[in-house]
Amino acid sequence: MNPELSFIDQLRSIATDPAARGLLDDAAVLDLGGTRLVLTLDTLVEGVHFLAEDRADSVAWKLVAVNVSDLAAKGAKPLAALTSYTLTGDAAWDNVFIKGLGEALDHFGIALIGGDTVSAHERSIGLTLVGEARGFVPSRSGAHEGDALFVTGIVGDAGLGLAIARGDMTGPASLLAAYRRPVPQLAAGAALAPTVSAMMDVSDGLLIDALRLADASGVAAMIDLDAIPLSPEFRGCRGDDRAARLIAATAGDDYQLLFASARPLPSLPCAATRIGQMVRGSGVHLHDRDGAVPLPMTLGWLHQ
Amino acid sequence: MNPELSFIDQLRSIATDPAARGLLDDAAVLDLGGTRLVLTLDTLVEGVHFLAEDRADSVAWKLVAVNVSDLAAKGAKPLAALTSYTLTGDAAWDNVFIKGLGEALDHFGIALIGGDTVSAHERSIGLTLVGEARGFVPSRSGAHEGDALFVTGIVGDAGLGLAIARGDMTGPASLLAAYRRPVPQLAAGAALAPTVSAMMDVSDGLLIDALRLADASGVAAMIDLDAIPLSPEFRGCRGDDRAARLIAATAGDDYQLLFASARPLPSLPCAATRIGQMVRGSGVHLHDRDGAVPLPMTLGWLHQ
Repeated sequence: MNPELSFIDQLRSIATDPAARGLLDDAAVLDLGGTRLVLTLDTLVEGVHFLAEDRADSVAWKLVAVNVSDLAAKGAKPLAALTSYTLTGDAAWDNVFIKGLGEALDHFGIALIGGDTVSAHERSIGLTLVGEARGFVPSRSGAHEGDALFVTGIVGDAGLGLAIARGDMTGPASLLAAYRRPVPQLAAGAALAPTVSAMMDVSDGLLIDALRLADASGVAAMIDLDAIPLSPEFRGCRGDDRAARLIAATAGDDYQLLFASARPLPSLPCAATRIGQMVRGSGVHLHDRDGAVPLPMTLGWLHQ
Repeated sequence: MNPELSFIDQLRSIATDPAARGLLDDAAVLDLGGTRLVLTLDTLVEGVHFLAEDRADSVAWKLVAVNVSDLAAKGAKPLAALTSYTLTGDAAWDNVFIKGLGEALDHFGIALIGGDTVSAHERSIGLTLVGEARGFVPSRSGAHEGDALFVTGIVGDAGLGLAIARGDMTGPASLLAAYRRPVPQLAAGAALAPTVSAMMDVSDGLLIDALRLADASGVAAMIDLDAIPLSPEFRGCRGDDRAARLIAATAGDDYQLLFASARPLPSLPCAATRIGQMVRGSGVHLHDRDGAVPLPMTLGWLHQ
């Protein structure tokens, strides 16, 4: 049994407030005195979410970007952040981290309003992000049979970037940048939120996140592997066959938006590609030009 | 140099929004669309803030209580929480923790609205608490020359409770309970907030926290060691001489409210004891019936 799921199931049993959305979303939505708050808390642990050799300013960027991405999926505007930081005795790393944190927060227009430091052996950095939404806040659970399934931007680059960062392969700098400096789709999320039936960010891999969206909505996702948008750099490194596409669809860290919609797409600041459809049933089902494709053993990256 | 202070100084340089209150408070105050949010993020690390042998439900209580205490010092009402939890592979501990977390949140009327789990070797648990304040939110920095200095409840019990938990001494169960199940002064904080000039919670020790309040306010604190409220249990274990009072005044984990006020006290649901006065100058200055008392080497508990 996946220990995270078991623990989350237990947490869910005490998270009964509607604002918790059953812990099925990456962000909580709290209506308070006419203000619709969207809140997220994500933690990055060294060795799990980033590598010991990753630059501290890249880690800071990523910490902010992954939380912003959660808010992007809610169509919310990020406003303020609190950080929880472990001091492990490496002042040089800490200094570069803070500089990077300041730059990342500035980039997204977020005010740092609180910080807690604790001394620890393991580097683990949490960020609480507070944002505000106006109007409808999409969840993962609103997709209906017949909705089209879309993803923004391209997927798979960050997975190859991680392999480059680990020294497992060489490749263009754009792939490494996709891993180190993911760009959350904030503007696209805001434009899409009023029109989609369900939306989430792709953090752990397209297939596993599509499964989560399908499960939360009580429908199945049919995905055309050939439709998954790949970059020229990805194709240059891995090709464009079924195996390559499965790598892209199961790599994590894309921070694109995955959404179901029955309506025409609004004007967006980025590409959005129709990759499939929501149908009756459950699970994720893959096909390509050659027919049905068996699901890979691992649908994505589980941070365990 | 204290590494926490150095890091916090750097964080402060990027936390320029008024809501951050210069990171000189334990909570951030964010005005959003007519709602005055009070936000805090505190993390407990095993071996630093709790002992490996502490019961998981006590740790859960403490995690909630320390964050509630931060809100109590702002006179805010806690509403919702997000938790960041490390899975270290001990499902039995995790189960007891969740049960305790549910009970603690229920006790304070807080909804759990978000949770993030990460796998790690070191047990480190963060909680973001969202509360709401109405009207004036006191800070640490508002004390004036001439204000009287008060503390709620009693101090020192939790420090002895920690010694009992560590096996360093034996003593009454009430001392252990003071360490394991601190009770934040939420109702007192709400009653005091409109009338005090400065307020904070005593988490690291009365003397160090009084120094923080004095420094933030640009005045000095004169404290009468004889006035510090001790419990009969504390006196029974440690006596009531200068050395015993210095132990009480520098032990952490009291979670009482320390406040400066020039006005009559409102009706309170707990005792509040006048322990000194704010005067011109800087620092903390101690005296007792025998005259001036030199400051101890350590004013409190630094979580390093």
